[in-house]
Amino acid sequence: MQIGTLFGISVGPGDPELITLKGLRLLQRVPIVAFPAGIQGKPGVAQCIVMPWLREEQQQLPLMFPYVQDEELLTQAWRVAAEEVWHYLQQGQDVAFACEGDVSFYSTFTYLAQTLQELHPECVVQAVPGVCSPMAAVAALGVPLTVRSQRLVVLPALYAVAELETALDWADVVVLMKVSSVYEQVWEVLQKHQLLETAFVVERATLPNQVIYSNLRDRPHLKLPYFSLLIVQVTQTLVLNFS
Amino acid sequence: MQIGTLFGISVGPGDPELITLKGLRLLQRVPIVAFPAGIQGKPGVAQCIVMPWLREEQQQLPLMFPYVQDEELLTQAWRVAAEEVWHYLQQGQDVAFACEGDVSFYSTFTYLAQTLQELHPECVVQAVPGVCSPMAAVAALGVPLTVRSQRLVVLPALYAVAELETALDWADVVVLMKVSSVYEQVWEVLQKHQLLETAFVVERATLPNQVIYSNLRDRPHLKLPYFSLLIVQVTQTLVLNFS
Repeated sequence: MQIGTLFGISVGPGDPELITLKGLRLLQRVPIVAFPAGIQGKPGVAQCIVMPWLREEQQQLPLMFPYVQDEELLTQAWRVAAEEVWHYLQQGQDVAFACEGDVSFYSTFTYLAQTLQELHPECVVQAVPGVCSPMAAVAALGVPLTVRSQRLVVLPALYAVAELETALDWADVVVLMKVSSVYEQVWEVLQKHQLLETAFVVERATLPNQVIYSNLRDRPHLKLPYFSLLIVQVTQTLVLNFS
Repeated sequence: MQIGTLFGISVGPGDPELITLKGLRLLQRVPIVAFPAGIQGKPGVAQCIVMPWLREEQQQLPLMFPYVQDEELLTQAWRVAAEEVWHYLQQGQDVAFACEGDVSFYSTFTYLAQTLQELHPECVVQAVPGVCSPMAAVAALGVPLTVRSQRLVVLPALYAVAELETALDWADVVVLMKVSSVYEQVWEVLQKHQLLETAFVVERATLPNQVIYSNLRDRPHLKLPYFSLLIVQVTQTLVLNFS
């Protein structure tokens, strides 16, 4: 019997309509749909995105990925998740893993796929690209992310203020993912560089409760949700006025 | 009468199935579908992507954007294109502009929208995000673009080798868009930094004639098409084995 394929499906930033046709076709074709389990009883973002698209007979498989830094706990969680997926693959059933944003861009899917291939090298994995959150955020803002010869830097989290300083000295556009925990430090750096007025924060891009702050000058203490990102236009760029 | 809306529709990297549901819905709803005109009689990439989705009664509007550096010629071309679009908008008709990749990421759409808003400040523009080419390229390669705390740099073109050196010294992952014209120089820099074996080139990601070079060691003189991108994993990352 042929083993099943694990599809990593990028389901986009939040709006269920921002999945691709290919992602939706594969999502609806497989018997098993996996996604990161929610926390504290709340469904996860990827789960919410795929819910409207699932058929009743499809089996849902929430996988636990703890929000911890401990390498050993994480590795253990990925192994458990990989074996849960393997259980179906080895029976010849395809599994789709629904992944918020794009599956290749700071995604949990990478660890799941890697662990699965370490434990079961024969397994077959296929990634379907999608809409990543920076693209969704700028579309909502009504500005381009990059134009012409602009250099783009993406920092997934801030471990040292010096790193942001280096990026601001060099790049034309800087994106800070998951900025919530370091927002006040970032605000001070931006103030020092006189960049508060060309910095934007987008919370939960494309979701019904999306919030946009399009000028940070008077906002040194924003309380932001986990999925917030900050975009800084370091050099003068086009500021359009989309809706 | 209400004026029409200009929708900037990201149609993805090449595979027509990589348009989003939202992009397709809006694309099929409008009476006028614009796209960059092809060159030398060949249809453009965005045009090829949307063709299978258009209805016969939709009017197609190819817009000329010359491949030149001359600012005056470009500005003139954008003005002509903007007025062609405005002709329909002012009659209350919505226009969709189909844009390869993502509409906010080094896109012609930015100039069209900006020029239109300069000439006709009352016009309404809406951007629909999509799949950008780096995400499509790594999905095809079977590697993640970024994981964990990796710093990403995107360089749209190379104007100075020193810039690439700076990026390689600082970032974990570097993407060079439109690498064809500078490939040999880039190869030499990568050789000096001993990064040829973790550098990849993807030509025409997700199109039927996609080509992947997953190790550049023996390839100092690749002849690449315009839409080729190069990805360098500067620090050790996961190399998966997707199909």
